[in-house]
Amino acid sequence: MTVFVRSAGRAADQLRPVRITRGYTIHAEGSVLIEFGQTRVLCTASVEDKVPPHKRGSGEGWVTAEYGMLPRATHTRSDREAARGKQSGRTQEIQRLIGRSMRAVFNLAALGERTIHLDCDVLQADGGTRTAAITGAFVAAQDAVDKLLAAGKIQATPILDHVAAISVGIVQGTPLLDLEYTEDSACDTDMNVVMTGAGHFVEVQGTAEGAAFTRDEMNALLALAEKGIGELTVLQTQALAA
Amino acid sequence: MTVFVRSAGRAADQLRPVRITRGYTIHAEGSVLIEFGQTRVLCTASVEDKVPPHKRGSGEGWVTAEYGMLPRATHTRSDREAARGKQSGRTQEIQRLIGRSMRAVFNLAALGERTIHLDCDVLQADGGTRTAAITGAFVAAQDAVDKLLAAGKIQATPILDHVAAISVGIVQGTPLLDLEYTEDSACDTDMNVVMTGAGHFVEVQGTAEGAAFTRDEMNALLALAEKGIGELTVLQTQALAA
Amino acid sequence: MTVFVRSAGRAADQLRPVRITRGYTIHAEGSVLIEFGQTRVLCTASVEDKVPPHKRGSGEGWVTAEYGMLPRATHTRSDREAARGKQSGRTQEIQRLIGRSMRAVFNLAALGERTIHLDCDVLQADGGTRTAAITGAFVAAQDAVDKLLAAGKIQATPILDHVAAISVGIVQGTPLLDLEYTEDSACDTDMNVVMTGAGHFVEVQGTAEGAAFTRDEMNALLALAEKGIGELTVLQTQALAA
Amino acid sequence: MTVFVRSAGRAADQLRPVRITRGYTIHAEGSVLIEFGQTRVLCTASVEDKVPPHKRGSGEGWVTAEYGMLPRATHTRSDREAARGKQSGRTQEIQRLIGRSMRAVFNLAALGERTIHLDCDVLQADGGTRTAAITGAFVAAQDAVDKLLAAGKIQATPILDHVAAISVGIVQGTPLLDLEYTEDSACDTDMNVVMTGAGHFVEVQGTAEGAAFTRDEMNALLALAEKGIGELTVLQTQALAA
Amino acid sequence: MTVFVRSAGRAADQLRPVRITRGYTIHAEGSVLIEFGQTRVLCTASVEDKVPPHKRGSGEGWVTAEYGMLPRATHTRSDREAARGKQSGRTQEIQRLIGRSMRAVFNLAALGERTIHLDCDVLQADGGTRTAAITGAFVAAQDAVDKLLAAGKIQATPILDHVAAISVGIVQGTPLLDLEYTEDSACDTDMNVVMTGAGHFVEVQGTAEGAAFTRDEMNALLALAEKGIGELTVLQTQALAA
Amino acid sequence: MTVFVRSAGRAADQLRPVRITRGYTIHAEGSVLIEFGQTRVLCTASVEDKVPPHKRGSGEGWVTAEYGMLPRATHTRSDREAARGKQSGRTQEIQRLIGRSMRAVFNLAALGERTIHLDCDVLQADGGTRTAAITGAFVAAQDAVDKLLAAGKIQATPILDHVAAISVGIVQGTPLLDLEYTEDSACDTDMNVVMTGAGHFVEVQGTAEGAAFTRDEMNALLALAEKGIGELTVLQTQALAA
Repeated sequence: MTVFVRSAGRAADQLRPVRITRGYTIHAEGSVLIEFGQTRVLCTASVEDKVPPHKRGSGEGWVTAEYGMLPRATHTRSDREAARGKQSGRTQEIQRLIGRSMRAVFNLAALGERTIHLDCDVLQADGGTRTAAITGAFVAAQDAVDKLLAAGKIQATPILDHVAAISVGIVQGTPLLDLEYTEDSACDTDMNVVMTGAGHFVEVQGTAEGAAFTRDEMNALLALAEKGIGELTVLQTQALAA
Repeated sequence: MTVFVRSAGRAADQLRPVRITRGYTIHAEGSVLIEFGQTRVLCTASVEDKVPPHKRGSGEGWVTAEYGMLPRATHTRSDREAARGKQSGRTQEIQRLIGRSMRAVFNLAALGERTIHLDCDVLQADGGTRTAAITGAFVAAQDAVDKLLAAGKIQATPILDHVAAISVGIVQGTPLLDLEYTEDSACDTDMNVVMTGAGHFVEVQGTAEGAAFTRDEMNALLALAEKGIGELTVLQTQALAA
Repeated sequence: MTVFVRSAGRAADQLRPVRITRGYTIHAEGSVLIEFGQTRVLCTASVEDKVPPHKRGSGEGWVTAEYGMLPRATHTRSDREAARGKQSGRTQEIQRLIGRSMRAVFNLAALGERTIHLDCDVLQADGGTRTAAITGAFVAAQDAVDKLLAAGKIQATPILDHVAAISVGIVQGTPLLDLEYTEDSACDTDMNVVMTGAGHFVEVQGTAEGAAFTRDEMNALLALAEKGIGELTVLQTQALAA
Repeated sequence: MTVFVRSAGRAADQLRPVRITRGYTIHAEGSVLIEFGQTRVLCTASVEDKVPPHKRGSGEGWVTAEYGMLPRATHTRSDREAARGKQSGRTQEIQRLIGRSMRAVFNLAALGERTIHLDCDVLQADGGTRTAAITGAFVAAQDAVDKLLAAGKIQATPILDHVAAISVGIVQGTPLLDLEYTEDSACDTDMNVVMTGAGHFVEVQGTAEGAAFTRDEMNALLALAEKGIGELTVLQTQALAA
Repeated sequence: MTVFVRSAGRAADQLRPVRITRGYTIHAEGSVLIEFGQTRVLCTASVEDKVPPHKRGSGEGWVTAEYGMLPRATHTRSDREAARGKQSGRTQEIQRLIGRSMRAVFNLAALGERTIHLDCDVLQADGGTRTAAITGAFVAAQDAVDKLLAAGKIQATPILDHVAAISVGIVQGTPLLDLEYTEDSACDTDMNVVMTGAGHFVEVQGTAEGAAFTRDEMNALLALAEKGIGELTVLQTQALAA
Repeated sequence: MTVFVRSAGRAADQLRPVRITRGYTIHAEGSVLIEFGQTRVLCTASVEDKVPPHKRGSGEGWVTAEYGMLPRATHTRSDREAARGKQSGRTQEIQRLIGRSMRAVFNLAALGERTIHLDCDVLQADGGTRTAAITGAFVAAQDAVDKLLAAGKIQATPILDHVAAISVGIVQGTPLLDLEYTEDSACDTDMNVVMTGAGHFVEVQGTAEGAAFTRDEMNALLALAEKGIGELTVLQTQALAA
């Protein structure tokens, strides 16, 4: 069996170069530019001293996310969602995924009655924007939490563990880690995996784009994802230590 | 370890009573009421002799789905989406899932330049509405295809295999098949699995509602789903033979 | 003059077979499937312990209605209003009519500061959906009110009288009671009449689709409507006694 | 029985002073300011050389109406519908009524494949805006048709008869013609009647605001409407002759 | 150089005939029909005893404006914004301009916590609708303020000075005051100027429609505007004295 | 008179440090990050081989702009316009201004029937975002045009001259060039000026935020703007030569 050859000589189980730049913009409590190769997502964390209605008076906080893509982040220009007057189903799916992923590692009671808004805006897209967004949003959220701790607004961190995400997929029979755009377009199966620093699953979303996939293929993909997320967790730690 | 006790003495790996009623309404080319216990979804298949823009002139057809819930399908009344003026993110996620699942077993070229619209409307909800919708929509689509074959509009079936879906989850440490509403609300991990008749995966969407889940837990859930979907495939076959 | 011949040998002044099924779904305080021949409408009554802004602090309650049609309730599929992002003018007209009709027999002060929402969703359409909706909604509202009485939340019924509705029209010169779809499409004049159990008018909406109609024709139509609504009131009573 | 005393000594069966001013604005093919007492509605007729999709290629034309109310046409300011982003159910009901009424006296085939848009904008409201709109729109439409005839674009008039409308109602037991705002607010029954010049009914829309109404009351109201519309038809003729 | 010849022998620096009719409609606290030649705008001022959220509890009032154009105010019919479901960018720009212009001469603290809504609706358009709207809205606002003073709701006027506006432009090399529609369509440069009674600038909005304009041209245009607005201020004073 | 002291010892007539980075993202035909001090705007130019309806078949092209601000580009987070479902009036005003400014230096016939979309997205805001957007969009448009020329799709440049923009204003009596956010918030008069490379005016938009401004003040502001835009034109040229 021939194996799919990746660009830049990348191995099947190798991440693209990942760069995490903290303090990318000045106003937000956390502001991170995360790059997975040519994919670039700006993740900001904004702290607001109130909560949505379903949390009012609960003593608990809330963590939520919004996702957007600049019109020319992609190969061909796509319509601006603000001009069309609504967010696409894809956008809503992604921002709900980011929000759930972040809440999975948050103790909302320890956050107190405040909201952390994570805005993930794709400046340049080359596959894996949602997984880059989750991985970067975690770092931005950590920066925002550190500011709350430093200001004495909370006494203990509400963050329970790391959370990071990666895409995996099968292209021409080869399971690959961290798909770039051309791989994503060609793949038979595409899976986004979100895991904690402890190595447990937060989200697994696998979709057969072409043929349905077997249990063995799924196992191979999950193994790749575990490896990649382990590496991303280390990169998050390094970025936060810098 | 204590095991969670289900209502009506149901075993952990047991489906609720499933009923599939074909010809539930008279106008649609396929019209199926599917019941998973108290969950009732009306799935209609409508054939239209045109395709959306991205398929025009391609010689290929299209299969798409819409999902809705009657305002009082649920314990407390929810707003009518038509009155609010937009579909929720949840609704859009579900209808995109149903559409992808159906297309996974369709040869769009064999369908010709026509569209099959699958409308899945929840009359009564008690957990598992999206998986009931997929399972029922397949039967409605099969009826619509059979009408096209009988009318000589297509010569060979565009349907490649069965597709069916089930939810699985972990409640108080016990992996359960086919969650009803009270179980769904209480579960730590919730997974929707879509599979073909051949036993391959079309979609796997697992979410940690509480604690993140381990690889072992995931394996247990997938095994339950395989069992349940195998049974659903048999029930689809029986309904279509009736 | 030749007289228009109806399907199934129905007489000009004869209702289609009417079936009223209470408790059709389990969650709503009132849930009624009403059938006028092939027309089937699910009417649910939901009680909410608050009122819209214009009634707040008034001590009075509110009764309101929403109407919808499943996309394939009709011969050819129509767009889903939730997906299009707005309700049609026709939908709004109908739900306003249902709401006014129900309020005509309600003592809102006796209801107390709560709202009864009547959701009328057409599962299958064959003419007369709005009149079936009004007739069925009354039964659902009665069931909801009986639950409030049984629970001691109100001491006396706020319902003053029955309300029911029927369509009448002139097809090829013949005045007909309870038009089905093919008759409705062919008629020159179409009138929807809503009356109380006491035989008084709540709403009369007559429209000349083709030629304008005379006072004599109008009188003939009103006489038919009175007969039909008298029969519907008896059927409501029987259903509520069952 | 005491009889309700109207303002300005008006008799129960008397119209308010009606003024019809043609050529009120300069751009439209027909432009009529119609006044029923203090109610003032500007009705313009605009001819467009195309038809909506359902008439394309049919050889037939279309007549349609839109209705609006300036925010401060009323006693207290109401929201601007353009700013709120949608037309109310009431607005849609009224503009559908005006459109149907106008089409009732139009031979669409004789109009040819063109559309007449009737815009009815309420500058000042004091009850009866929809009936004034219908009565004025007829005059504007006649002016637009006369321009088409004069320009040789059509050879024969597509207008088959006059159409006019009036409101009637029962206030404190007294049937009244042409309700002004204070009467409309106080009435038990409110009926809008649209008739042709030949004295036939186009639309009858009666609503019990308070107690349901009897057949005798309905007869009294219809008689009043017939009288009023007869007078309006004469006033239309006089205005068109001026 | 040839000089552009205006219709009706109007001089380059001459306003069109301006008419200001107070009390044009009966319900509003101020109601002014302003005419600049064939341009006619109805400006109403409505006083409301509350303020928008950003002023609540501030002790200050608010002055805001909305702008609309009847569909057939123009040579060819334009879509009704309420029917399309949104206001155009042009409409929003104009109503923001009117609001800012009015607030420039208001002492919001002296107004107290109330809002003056200025609704400017174009009945007939022939160029200069936004400048007519500002000039007329000032008179309507003055009438509304006088009613507040007369009623003792405020003790001193919150109005600090007159405000009025005019358009100027360069057509075929000639600077012109108060452009009518045909001039506006043909002009290279179009400028809207808003000034106080004291002769100071509130807004200057100049746009090169064709070639960019020089500083000298700008000076010529501003001089024309100063002359025109001086005359408008006198006309406002005369109208208010009438 | 005391003179307002600017941050970083900036002189009243001094621009903030301006940086123009071409090729900031990889997909767009032109992609420029422009920085005016802390204000950072990403301007992309996308070429599309079709034109909007009003230009179809005209042989001419079109140049248009859209503007957006990331939710946390500002000191406090603002709502995402895509999530709210509409663009604010401010956003629409700005994108219309950018579009008009760019078209002022474009020969649309020389562009041929294609559209250049200029997307200006504010990554970080500190005053002057619209003027930075215009200045940067020109460079992005030039890059896109150069690609069309290099590909032989057009033979001669459709760009007639440079266009650039700057804000000026009066703060505490001092006229200032290139306002940053704190100055903009405090200013009495705020003016945005757009000019060509030849030193002619394309747009002048002056607004009195506090007291109205005199002709002398306006002259002082225009002189500052001329100076600043002259410098920006040089910077554009340098960036394009790099």
